Amino acid sequence: MNSLQAENRKSLMLFSGRAYPELADEIGAHLGLQPTPTAAYDFANGEIFVRFEESVRGSDAFVVQSMTTPINQWLVEALIMVDALKRGSAKRITVVLPFFPYARQDKKHRGREPISARLVADMFKTAGADRILTVDLHTAQISGFFDGPVDHLFALSILADYVKRTYEGRQFAVVAPDSGRVRVAERWTDELGGCPLAFIHKTRDPLIPNQVVANRVVGEVEGRTCVLVDDMIDTGGTICKAADALFDAGAGDVIVAATHGVLSDPATERLKNSRISEVVLTNTLPVPPEKKLDKLTLLSIAPLIARAISEVFSDGSVTSLFGGVS
Amino acid sequence: MNSLQAENRKSLMLFSGRAYPELADEIGAHLGLQPTPTAAYDFANGEIFVRFEESVRGSDAFVVQSMTTPINQWLVEALIMVDALKRGSAKRITVVLPFFPYARQDKKHRGREPISARLVADMFKTAGADRILTVDLHTAQISGFFDGPVDHLFALSILADYVKRTYEGRQFAVVAPDSGRVRVAERWTDELGGCPLAFIHKTRDPLIPNQVVANRVVGEVEGRTCVLVDDMIDTGGTICKAADALFDAGAGDVIVAATHGVLSDPATERLKNSRISEVVLTNTLPVPPEKKLDKLTLLSIAPLIARAISEVFSDGSVTSLFGGVS
Amino acid sequence: MNSLQAENRKSLMLFSGRAYPELADEIGAHLGLQPTPTAAYDFANGEIFVRFEESVRGSDAFVVQSMTTPINQWLVEALIMVDALKRGSAKRITVVLPFFPYARQDKKHRGREPISARLVADMFKTAGADRILTVDLHTAQISGFFDGPVDHLFALSILADYVKRTYEGRQFAVVAPDSGRVRVAERWTDELGGCPLAFIHKTRDPLIPNQVVANRVVGEVEGRTCVLVDDMIDTGGTICKAADALFDAGAGDVIVAATHGVLSDPATERLKNSRISEVVLTNTLPVPPEKKLDKLTLLSIAPLIARAISEVFSDGSVTSLFGGVS
Amino acid sequence: MNSLQAENRKSLMLFSGRAYPELADEIGAHLGLQPTPTAAYDFANGEIFVRFEESVRGSDAFVVQSMTTPINQWLVEALIMVDALKRGSAKRITVVLPFFPYARQDKKHRGREPISARLVADMFKTAGADRILTVDLHTAQISGFFDGPVDHLFALSILADYVKRTYEGRQFAVVAPDSGRVRVAERWTDELGGCPLAFIHKTRDPLIPNQVVANRVVGEVEGRTCVLVDDMIDTGGTICKAADALFDAGAGDVIVAATHGVLSDPATERLKNSRISEVVLTNTLPVPPEKKLDKLTLLSIAPLIARAISEVFSDGSVTSLFGGVS
Amino acid sequence: MNSLQAENRKSLMLFSGRAYPELADEIGAHLGLQPTPTAAYDFANGEIFVRFEESVRGSDAFVVQSMTTPINQWLVEALIMVDALKRGSAKRITVVLPFFPYARQDKKHRGREPISARLVADMFKTAGADRILTVDLHTAQISGFFDGPVDHLFALSILADYVKRTYEGRQFAVVAPDSGRVRVAERWTDELGGCPLAFIHKTRDPLIPNQVVANRVVGEVEGRTCVLVDDMIDTGGTICKAADALFDAGAGDVIVAATHGVLSDPATERLKNSRISEVVLTNTLPVPPEKKLDKLTLLSIAPLIARAISEVFSDGSVTSLFGGVS
Amino acid sequence: MNSLQAENRKSLMLFSGRAYPELADEIGAHLGLQPTPTAAYDFANGEIFVRFEESVRGSDAFVVQSMTTPINQWLVEALIMVDALKRGSAKRITVVLPFFPYARQDKKHRGREPISARLVADMFKTAGADRILTVDLHTAQISGFFDGPVDHLFALSILADYVKRTYEGRQFAVVAPDSGRVRVAERWTDELGGCPLAFIHKTRDPLIPNQVVANRVVGEVEGRTCVLVDDMIDTGGTICKAADALFDAGAGDVIVAATHGVLSDPATERLKNSRISEVVLTNTLPVPPEKKLDKLTLLSIAPLIARAISEVFSDGSVTSLFGGVS
Repeated sequence: MNSLQAENRKSLMLFSGRAYPELADEIGAHLGLQPTPTAAYDFANGEIFVRFEESVRGSDAFVVQSMTTPINQWLVEALIMVDALKRGSAKRITVVLPFFPYARQDKKHRGREPISARLVADMFKTAGADRILTVDLHTAQISGFFDGPVDHLFALSILADYVKRTYEGRQFAVVAPDSGRVRVAERWTDELGGCPLAFIHKTRDPLIPNQVVANRVVGEVEGRTCVLVDDMIDTGGTICKAADALFDAGAGDVIVAATHGVLSDPATERLKNSRISEVVLTNTLPVPPEKKLDKLTLLSIAPLIARAISEVFSDGSVTSLFGGVS
Repeated sequence: MNSLQAENRKSLMLFSGRAYPELADEIGAHLGLQPTPTAAYDFANGEIFVRFEESVRGSDAFVVQSMTTPINQWLVEALIMVDALKRGSAKRITVVLPFFPYARQDKKHRGREPISARLVADMFKTAGADRILTVDLHTAQISGFFDGPVDHLFALSILADYVKRTYEGRQFAVVAPDSGRVRVAERWTDELGGCPLAFIHKTRDPLIPNQVVANRVVGEVEGRTCVLVDDMIDTGGTICKAADALFDAGAGDVIVAATHGVLSDPATERLKNSRISEVVLTNTLPVPPEKKLDKLTLLSIAPLIARAISEVFSDGSVTSLFGGVS
Repeated sequence: MNSLQAENRKSLMLFSGRAYPELADEIGAHLGLQPTPTAAYDFANGEIFVRFEESVRGSDAFVVQSMTTPINQWLVEALIMVDALKRGSAKRITVVLPFFPYARQDKKHRGREPISARLVADMFKTAGADRILTVDLHTAQISGFFDGPVDHLFALSILADYVKRTYEGRQFAVVAPDSGRVRVAERWTDELGGCPLAFIHKTRDPLIPNQVVANRVVGEVEGRTCVLVDDMIDTGGTICKAADALFDAGAGDVIVAATHGVLSDPATERLKNSRISEVVLTNTLPVPPEKKLDKLTLLSIAPLIARAISEVFSDGSVTSLFGGVS
Repeated sequence: MNSLQAENRKSLMLFSGRAYPELADEIGAHLGLQPTPTAAYDFANGEIFVRFEESVRGSDAFVVQSMTTPINQWLVEALIMVDALKRGSAKRITVVLPFFPYARQDKKHRGREPISARLVADMFKTAGADRILTVDLHTAQISGFFDGPVDHLFALSILADYVKRTYEGRQFAVVAPDSGRVRVAERWTDELGGCPLAFIHKTRDPLIPNQVVANRVVGEVEGRTCVLVDDMIDTGGTICKAADALFDAGAGDVIVAATHGVLSDPATERLKNSRISEVVLTNTLPVPPEKKLDKLTLLSIAPLIARAISEVFSDGSVTSLFGGVS
Repeated sequence: MNSLQAENRKSLMLFSGRAYPELADEIGAHLGLQPTPTAAYDFANGEIFVRFEESVRGSDAFVVQSMTTPINQWLVEALIMVDALKRGSAKRITVVLPFFPYARQDKKHRGREPISARLVADMFKTAGADRILTVDLHTAQISGFFDGPVDHLFALSILADYVKRTYEGRQFAVVAPDSGRVRVAERWTDELGGCPLAFIHKTRDPLIPNQVVANRVVGEVEGRTCVLVDDMIDTGGTICKAADALFDAGAGDVIVAATHGVLSDPATERLKNSRISEVVLTNTLPVPPEKKLDKLTLLSIAPLIARAISEVFSDGSVTSLFGGVS
Repeated sequence: MNSLQAENRKSLMLFSGRAYPELADEIGAHLGLQPTPTAAYDFANGEIFVRFEESVRGSDAFVVQSMTTPINQWLVEALIMVDALKRGSAKRITVVLPFFPYARQDKKHRGREPISARLVADMFKTAGADRILTVDLHTAQISGFFDGPVDHLFALSILADYVKRTYEGRQFAVVAPDSGRVRVAERWTDELGGCPLAFIHKTRDPLIPNQVVANRVVGEVEGRTCVLVDDMIDTGGTICKAADALFDAGAGDVIVAATHGVLSDPATERLKNSRISEVVLTNTLPVPPEKKLDKLTLLSIAPLIARAISEVFSDGSVTSLFGGVS
């Protein structure tokens, strides 16, 4: 006999980095699956060690890492996990990055800068990743940085459904916190029934280069419940200044909606002290207890990611199910 | 003797595709250099043949191709030229793309689409290009699609200088024709002394998906000379509707400024029939005589490109000279 | 549970570019399969847009594009389709090129030329193609230009069977139209029962470089039905001059057989006015109605390609079935 | 219908180079499988030709080549076989190298040397190999030279089991023949119940660079049965000098155990004339009849390799079964 | 004129990450050169930003980063710096890693582990590094992990010269702290005039897997000044236990010599409390003031690295000057 | 100071493999340069070791290897030399292959064969070669197998000049020994003043597949001095049978001209016993004394290669000087 025949089955395995294991657990729960037991720890000098406790040979592997602080450590850990999967003969490796790291460095703002988001994409490719699954990229062009399929999911409907449900009957205005996010805000106006659109125009002093002198509201906000939308809240500076400008311009109320709650210091303090009435985020990044506020609402991204993983595994369509782009 | 020593000199050579040889000639004139004589023609079935008439060995080669209609032909010709330079032992190959082709397909708008701009970047890399030099990318992220240095030049100061000089004393407002170009428009406001900023908000019918029902002006334009700015004018539809909306909103005058004059039909007809008083473009793309209008002003991009090539050749700084990003 | 199990099925999908959809339809009919519905159109400036209307995730995808005029447009379209399939998570991508573009530029004829056929192969690899399926390459070495499997099919038996059946009883001579195609002609002599072999020797004037002064018939053709064979008929110049030389040398009749009917102008005119009695081609390239002649016979290549696709999909042997090389 | 569905089965095929076909046959016998019939021969000038007699399309291919003399010929043959499998559409290609060639050139010992072991790994990757399966690498780091999974098997338990069984009751000392192999020897001490460990220290003359003046035994060997262990026996010089030093230091008996029997001349003569009582090797390399000695015991590596192949094919765990690293 | 000619000069530029800028300054001082002014800082969420303050175009760039804690941050910073240099058109990029990170994960110790040292090498290649310059790799094979030139320098003569000078007249024994470092220790014996060589044999309990039960000294140390040598001191556990074993075996004195002072906690405490009389290290890694001990001697590695950089820049020989391997 | 400046000189170095050092010496003599002293030898098991005795850093390196028997050994040696040059920081590496190995396996003749010539090209690329310089490829398409510049030189004028000078006044006919070499023969007719062209047609038995039954001369040879031309003489079978057929057809005299004298057994015997009056070859391959015949004339290829190397080094034109293609 010149060949041995065997059935060819597929096997989905889930792997979790140490950044935010609760999210991987939650995704696994939706899939009816536990993350593969993994030994991972830091050596005394900070070098990371990873070893999977079960064979990964032939698996359709999904590695979940939430890129929170310390972000470079979790980035390197995820790369090391991909390397271990490649060398352990996983059949296909998908990196699940609910928040894509270094997404804001997606171009050179001036000369002699890196394009770190491209570097991240290339490093995952080099380590052995076949695909990336991510949520609300800072700019959609980043999906073109990876040489392979990128499943790009959107949290818009999760966030907008919550806002519509919670604030039913309000007169909305959607507001972009700066000139670069107006397109994203425009998508919200459609979700909220065609309400007005505004943005904050940062004016500069013509005599002093690069100095912002005023936040001018462009668009109609008076008396309205302003939904300030962004992809992420980092230190909260931009969003709180935008809220101030909106109240100055006569806004009736300001609520904030964003996918990624980076919440670097002093975001919590700023949001707490602001007149913003509610901040709605998803849990693509963990929010530690000390950063939780009464006015902060956290919606889970896990069901969306779990359904996408399930479709990817079974060769279904991510596009048709959730409006994702893949 | 175990080695031969020789001086190592650099030699800049300029190459022009057939799309718009006048631009390469003009760039060459600024550099004091003629494009290298090249035999290029189409075979009967459309296959392109290229041969350089002089040795290119060891040269620092700059290939200029303006991606005008028929764009796929000129794209393939440029790739073939790069292949011939690589195989002819050019030392370094820079592709000069005044207008980056397929820049608008820089992401998947929905599932199962290509990211053609990344494909273009990869094809140039595969053919043998070491670097790209381009002007006003549709989105700056495209420079991250190429695995190597990209010199990204801006025509803003050329255009803005012209507008300031020509319309001195006017009360300007800068207007973005849609929500995705507000950031670019904001840069203009600084150039024009801190004038107001506005944009056109396309509202959609909540009952009929994807149908734009109105162009709403967001921002203050009444009585002002509106400078409608964009990276390119293709069929002119968006820009002419934007102008109409501006006049409806009380604009005193509307002038249009854009880097790339794609001017596909029926752009000329539309611009001619519009109330726009002047259209200012650069010659990154050729404007054939039949498309020229009295109200169309064409500024030359050649000096900017020539100076950038000169700096690249002599290892100077592109950043410091023209605010380019490289 | 640490893994989800599922059956792993294969799914063949067929995709057609816009160059010659009738051929893909015909191939699909032989397979019992329709090409996947695809939106494909040109933007106003000639940039191509492609989107598949159904999920391609996990598919064994075959992209059929017939490289006819405008050849660069169809080449770029096919590359864009491959990119969209790669980013849409097709499992394996085979590009079906019945006529390989730029095959005649498979070497540098003189210095400083490109090797465009290699460039084409590399571009398909870069875009994401895993395999190529093609028919009667201009030179078989081109299959070595692609870094992956190439299924190289031959139309010889389709053409020769027709000639034998139609001209049964004739005294054949097989004739190569120039010195570079004698090997191919020799294969025909075996198919036609060991008949004589001849070729046309282009003699040059020793005093004037590169000028052909005469077409000399080398070999025995007098009174015979000469089968003039080539891989393609482009403008028909070579083949018609060869036919003239054969009649001058006493040929009884001349018929022409070739796989690829490029038929660039003025091929139709030339063939019509020639004394060639029949031209036998396959439909690897479309022949538009205005180019059809009474003396032109078109044999379908679709059954051969369909059977090859079927074998590739089911891991059968292309070699054993049709003498293809794969 | 827009897609054809089919079951997706796996098919294991075994391929043997000409270096040592008996080993591939033996592996095949353990798997219940014959190596695929293959035409392989040298052209008159030494160029190798290979052709598989059956379709390899879609197969999970394992290519077995034992890197014996003439080693460069068998290396090139294996590369050519991989190329033929890649171009013949094998689905996955694993190269089985019981003895990894050029493993001793795994670093630059001085400047301007190659790292040939990395080159070998890269050449297999370039030819199309997806994976490597090997036994007892000279240094384990070599598995990091290959960009993909490496199944690294150990013959230690095969050899140690034999030694324990055969020499039960002896007082062992494990001895490394030089300072670089002490780690490997230490692993043996655990297998042999915690016996003493020694090594041979090559002392150099401080006045004459690079000249070894004495082999000093470091560690306790007096009266003991010394098990001299190494990964390979090449010319036998080091090992025979080590044995002499051991007997000089009062060793009771010396037996040698190694995985790879390279046995280049004059190894057989040296071993025969030495006071070593037994040499235990595996058959990762063929031992021709004229090199066989009474004191030479050859253990088969085929069962280990066959079980590893079986696990790789069925996505089982190589790690858990034989302590291999994969 | 068809080409512009210019002289082609070389320009060495030095770049320093933030891990240990004093070392780069010291290297620069030896070269007569300051590190290029660079803006580098962390964003609030830990993402690193880098921008060079001067043009790097055409430079021969050397990036110095000392891989100390937090090691993943400095690793990512170095990669980002390389990316910025590549995109800024540096001509050649050499990464200077005095201590190669993740060097101990240079193989899979068991299945399903990564080979992180290879991953690090590949990531630098992907980011754009052309060359690596490093000191005393944990295993020399790591230089084969990088696809390009690696200049591998040795600190042995710096360390040994100090020991010889300081302890002139002593009776030395060189001791390896475990079985894997005996080769390195052997090199020291030659430097110290042919003194005895010993190592610490970790014996395991045959009944309890993986448990070390005793550190047995193999070799002659009684009454001697033992020089315990290693490539790095991390937590100091191994080295202090080895020192204890040596004193138990009658050593007269124990001094420690190693290239890399990782000195993770509780190394300082352990060394302080040990009977080791002196610890000699180089400054490939910074030693913060709170870790400095009276018995700790720090030798500078900067002159060695500076001379190597100078030779690399001027195409001299690294090999011949300092016994480095390149 | 933030940068060090230095002059950038070029340095040509020549390296010779062990296959045919006399050729490299002869090339060097024409260049005024000695091959770099190199230690190269085989280990006992046939593994090759190479080390350059002088620094190669920054050099423009040319590696000459003549691919004679044992061809796989010399192929691997050349690859190892390239690896050592790459790791030793040579600036540019050109492999000089006077005879390209495996050139006859430039396509799959039937299914499941390798394309070994492509594999060879890729292996040199992987090892680190930037360029290839070669003479009279078996098919010119092979130059497209290498991803980089190939300088393809022709020996035609060397051979033809000799024939014209030696046989002045004869009535020539140029003859191709089989149908695949007619194109090459046609080029000779132009060199010899427009003489007749003929070839040998191998007829097959229609009843017995693949069996050649006769060698039929097609073309006019009676009474003429036939110049039988080929790229190489391997075993001499084809060429001697062709000569027999020519004499049978009335040829006055037969001389043979070919670039590459492979001369595998029994070529010498066959040529000696044939009626061929002279065999003219170049020394791209060594002809050992025992293979030399009175009727064998060996012309040196060294001047041609030396001039090409000189042009490549100085960025001159190879094309214009010797009709080479580069």
